[in-house]
Amino acid sequence: MASSLLTRQLTYTLQKNLKLSLPRGRYISQTATKNDVDFEYDGPSMKTEVPGPRSRNTGAVTFFCNYEESRGNYLVDVDGNRMLDLYCQISSIPIGYNHPALIKVLHDPTNVSTFVNRPALGVLPPENFPEKLTESLLSITPEGMNQVQTMACGSCSNENAFKTIFIWYRKKERGQVEITKEEQETCMINQSPGCPDYTIMSFMGGFHGRTMGCLAATHSKAIHKLDIPSLDWPIAPFPQLKYPLEDFIKENKLEEARCLEEVEDLIVKYRKKGKTVAGIVVEPIQSEGGDNHASDDFFRELREVVRKHGCAFLVDEVQTGGGCTGKFWAHEHWGLKDPGDIVSFSKKLQTGGYFYKDEFRPDAPYRIFNTWLGDPAKNLLLAEVINVINTEKLLDNVSRAGKVLLDGLLDLQTRYPHLVSRARGRGTFCSFDAPDDDKRNRMILKARNKGVVLGGCGEKSIRFRPALVFKEHHAHLFLNIFNDILADFK
Amino acid sequence: MASSLLTRQLTYTLQKNLKLSLPRGRYISQTATKNDVDFEYDGPSMKTEVPGPRSRNTGAVTFFCNYEESRGNYLVDVDGNRMLDLYCQISSIPIGYNHPALIKVLHDPTNVSTFVNRPALGVLPPENFPEKLTESLLSITPEGMNQVQTMACGSCSNENAFKTIFIWYRKKERGQVEITKEEQETCMINQSPGCPDYTIMSFMGGFHGRTMGCLAATHSKAIHKLDIPSLDWPIAPFPQLKYPLEDFIKENKLEEARCLEEVEDLIVKYRKKGKTVAGIVVEPIQSEGGDNHASDDFFRELREVVRKHGCAFLVDEVQTGGGCTGKFWAHEHWGLKDPGDIVSFSKKLQTGGYFYKDEFRPDAPYRIFNTWLGDPAKNLLLAEVINVINTEKLLDNVSRAGKVLLDGLLDLQTRYPHLVSRARGRGTFCSFDAPDDDKRNRMILKARNKGVVLGGCGEKSIRFRPALVFKEHHAHLFLNIFNDILADFK
Repeated sequence: MASSLLTRQLTYTLQKNLKLSLPRGRYISQTATKNDVDFEYDGPSMKTEVPGPRSRNTGAVTFFCNYEESRGNYLVDVDGNRMLDLYCQISSIPIGYNHPALIKVLHDPTNVSTFVNRPALGVLPPENFPEKLTESLLSITPEGMNQVQTMACGSCSNENAFKTIFIWYRKKERGQVEITKEEQETCMINQSPGCPDYTIMSFMGGFHGRTMGCLAATHSKAIHKLDIPSLDWPIAPFPQLKYPLEDFIKENKLEEARCLEEVEDLIVKYRKKGKTVAGIVVEPIQSEGGDNHASDDFFRELREVVRKHGCAFLVDEVQTGGGCTGKFWAHEHWGLKDPGDIVSFSKKLQTGGYFYKDEFRPDAPYRIFNTWLGDPAKNLLLAEVINVINTEKLLDNVSRAGKVLLDGLLDLQTRYPHLVSRARGRGTFCSFDAPDDDKRNRMILKARNKGVVLGGCGEKSIRFRPALVFKEHHAHLFLNIFNDILADFK
Repeated sequence: MASSLLTRQLTYTLQKNLKLSLPRGRYISQTATKNDVDFEYDGPSMKTEVPGPRSRNTGAVTFFCNYEESRGNYLVDVDGNRMLDLYCQISSIPIGYNHPALIKVLHDPTNVSTFVNRPALGVLPPENFPEKLTESLLSITPEGMNQVQTMACGSCSNENAFKTIFIWYRKKERGQVEITKEEQETCMINQSPGCPDYTIMSFMGGFHGRTMGCLAATHSKAIHKLDIPSLDWPIAPFPQLKYPLEDFIKENKLEEARCLEEVEDLIVKYRKKGKTVAGIVVEPIQSEGGDNHASDDFFRELREVVRKHGCAFLVDEVQTGGGCTGKFWAHEHWGLKDPGDIVSFSKKLQTGGYFYKDEFRPDAPYRIFNTWLGDPAKNLLLAEVINVINTEKLLDNVSRAGKVLLDGLLDLQTRYPHLVSRARGRGTFCSFDAPDDDKRNRMILKARNKGVVLGGCGEKSIRFRPALVFKEHHAHLFLNIFNDILADFK
C-alpha cells in the first residue's frame, strides 16, 4: 500500500499542471475559500472521452473504474480520466473514495478475522458485535425506536420490514388467541388464514427495491416491473407539487390534501375487499422516481392518518438516509417525536437493515432470519463512517455545500429556463428537470466528458448524490463547468 | 496480527496437555493417520458449558464467538471453549476459519481499495472485475451455462433468478411482437398483462429463501411462512424415500414416479386456470427441509418433464454448491449435459448469484439490477477459496472424509437403532434422524458441551455441514465423541 500511495502522490503533483482549464469565467459562481478534502485531488483531469478506449461498454456499464486511484470526491476511470463524482455509486459512497479512516480499518490487525470469517450473525455473532452495534447503528437510532436488524441490502431490508409489519399486524389482530393448527397448515401451502391477505400500501412514483415484495410496492419505471407477476396492493397518488415549494404553498396544499384523502379511501376500500392494509411505505423524498418532494406537513399528516387506521408506518430511507439531506435521517426534517414504526436503510450505511420499535419485535426467533443477516465487516466500516461524520461535522458541511449547490441551480434555472427547471433539494440531495429524457441524457454525457459524473432519475430529472465530503468549492467547481455546458447546449 | 498469531501458537501448545480425554475406547472408529490442517488446533478443548457465562443468550443466538482465535475446523467461543465445527455458520464457511490464504487476501495492498470502495457493480465496475470473475465464478460455471450474475445473498439470487425466468418466458410467449402500451401501463399498477399471472413451481419441503417471492416457493417450516401473505403457486410433492436408498430401489422408484406425475398434472392444471408455470425450482438435496434426497434418475426425469413443458429449470445450489457433496455442484452427480437453465448459489461461495444460459440474458439493461449487485470484495475471497480447493484437492478430501463420516453414521445406526436412523449423505453433506425433535435438540446440546457444533434440519434430523478442510481424522474424532454421547443418552 505504501508504494501505491507514493505513486498516487506523485501523479497528484504531476497532474496539478495538466489540469483542465476551468472555469471559462462567464459564470455566476464565485470561487469559494478552498477548504480542501486533504486526501483527494484538486480538480477533474480528462484524458479521453468517457467511456474511453479501455472501458468496454456492455449492457448497463457506464465505464470501468480505477478505484485504487479514486480519492475523495474524484472517481478515476481506467483511461486515467479523473471526474468530480456527484452520483457516488447511486448515492452509496458516504465519505468519499479511499478515505484514510476506512483504509485504517482494513489495516487494523484486530479486524482481519471479521473480514475473512463471515458469521451466521443471527445464531453465532462475534464477541464484539453488541459493542460494534452500539458504536455504529445504535448511535444513529431514529426517534422513538430502539431495535435494529441488519440485512445485506436495501431490498432485503424492505422485504423483512414488510414481514415484520405483517407479523405485528397479525399478532394484534389475533390477540391472546393461540396460533391455530389451521394457520400452521395453510401457511405451508401459501393459503389464508396462515398466509393472510394483508397488503402494504405504497405511492405511485415510489421505489422500494426489486425483489417480489418490494417490487409490488415499487412504481417508478415500467422497466423494473414489466413481465414480473405482482400483488394486488393499494397504490396511493404521491403529491405532484409545483416548485419552488415556497411559491406554490396554496396549490401544493390542495394537492397534498387530495392525496391524503385517497390514502384513507384506499385503506377503507382494501379493508372492505378483505385485503387489509397492514402498513404503508413511503420515501421522505421519492428518489429513483424523480426526486419528488412533499411538504413536512404532508408527512406529519400522513403519519397521523396511518396511526389513526392502525397501520404500521415504514419510512424507507435507503437513499435519503445517512446525512445527505443535512440531517442524518431525512425524516428528522418533519420534527416528529414518533416519525414512524420502522425505518429502513442501506447504501451510505454500507449495510442494509432497519430500525424498529419494541412492539414490532417478532415473538419468536427464526421468524426474521437468514444465513448472514448482514455482515459485521460492513459494520466495522460503518462505525468509522459515523465517527468521521461526527468528527468532521459533515452534516453541517452538507447543509453549507447543499445551499451553494441549490442556489447555483436556481440561478442556472433563471439563466437557462429552456434547459433547467424545477430546481429542488434538501442538503446536497438536489435535482432539477431537463426539458426531456433525451436532453437530460445528453447533459449527463457532456458533463462526464467535462469531468463531472451525474445521474438521472424519473423521466427527465438529474439528481445530485455527492458524498458527505462534497464541499462548497466542489459545488462552485461543478456550477462553473455546468454553466459552460448549458451556455453551449444545443 | 503478528503478536496475535504468537498468542495463538502459545495457547495451542499450552492446551495440548489440557485436551479433553477422548475417546473412551469403546468406539468403532479407528484412529486415522492424522493428515493435519496445518493452521488449526488438534482437538476440542472445553472450559465451560456452552453457552458459557460470557455468552449472553438472546433470541436465536446460540453463543458468542471469538472468530480471531477460531481456526480451520475449530470454532472458539467467548469463554475459550474450542469446538469442532460441523455446522460451519449454516454451511457457509468454505475452507475453515482464518485460512492463511484468505488472510493473505486481506494483507495484499492491491486489494485495499476493493474492500473500502464498494461500487455500483452494474454501472461502474472496477477495472479488474472481468479478470476477477474469470478467476473465480467463471472457472466453476455449471455445464451448459456461460453467464453469471452476482447478488448479495441467497434470497436475492433466487428472487432474481425467478425474475429472469419470468422475463424469458414472457419474451418467448410474446414472440416478435413489440411490448404494448397496455403492458407498460398495467405493470405500473401491478396488473396483467404487464405483470402476468406466471408462477414458479416448487416442492413441498423445499427451502429457497425468505423474501416474498422466495418464500412463496419455500415449504419447509411453518415458522418461516406464518402471517406473511403469499402467492397461489403450484407445490409438487417431493419424493419421500426410504433409506438406505440402495435397499429400497423399487419402492423409491414408485414414489418418485408418483411425484413426477404430479409435477406434470400441476403444470397442466395451473396452465388451465391461467397461472402458467414459467419455471420450476428444486434443490438437489432438500437441505433446510430435512436433507431429503431423491435419486439421480428422478432429477434426470424431472429435467426432461420440465423441458417437455417449456418451463425453465432452476437448480438452487445455495446450500449444496461449493464442493460439500464431493463435486463442486451437487447437480454434477446427475451426469447431465444440460442439467438446468439457471443455477443459483451463495453461502460457501461468499457471494450470492446465479449462472444462466445465454438465452436467459434479459433483452435490456436495468431489468435485472440493484445498487450493489454483489460485492467485488467477496469475489476476491472466492477467487482464493477456489484456488485453495484446487491446490489442496479438497473435493477428493470431501469424498474421503464423507465416506468415513457416512460409514460411521451407518455403524452408529446399527449400534443405536433407537437413537439413529435414516443415515444418509453425499460427500460430507450427511445427516441422520433422531427419534424426535426433543431428542434431536438434546443431542445437539450434548455434542456442543463435548466440543462438537452440530445443526438440525427438518423435523428431527441432524445435518452435517463441515468445511471442505474437514478430514478423515476429524470424522473419526466426531464419531468417537458422538458414540460416547449415544452410549450414555437418556
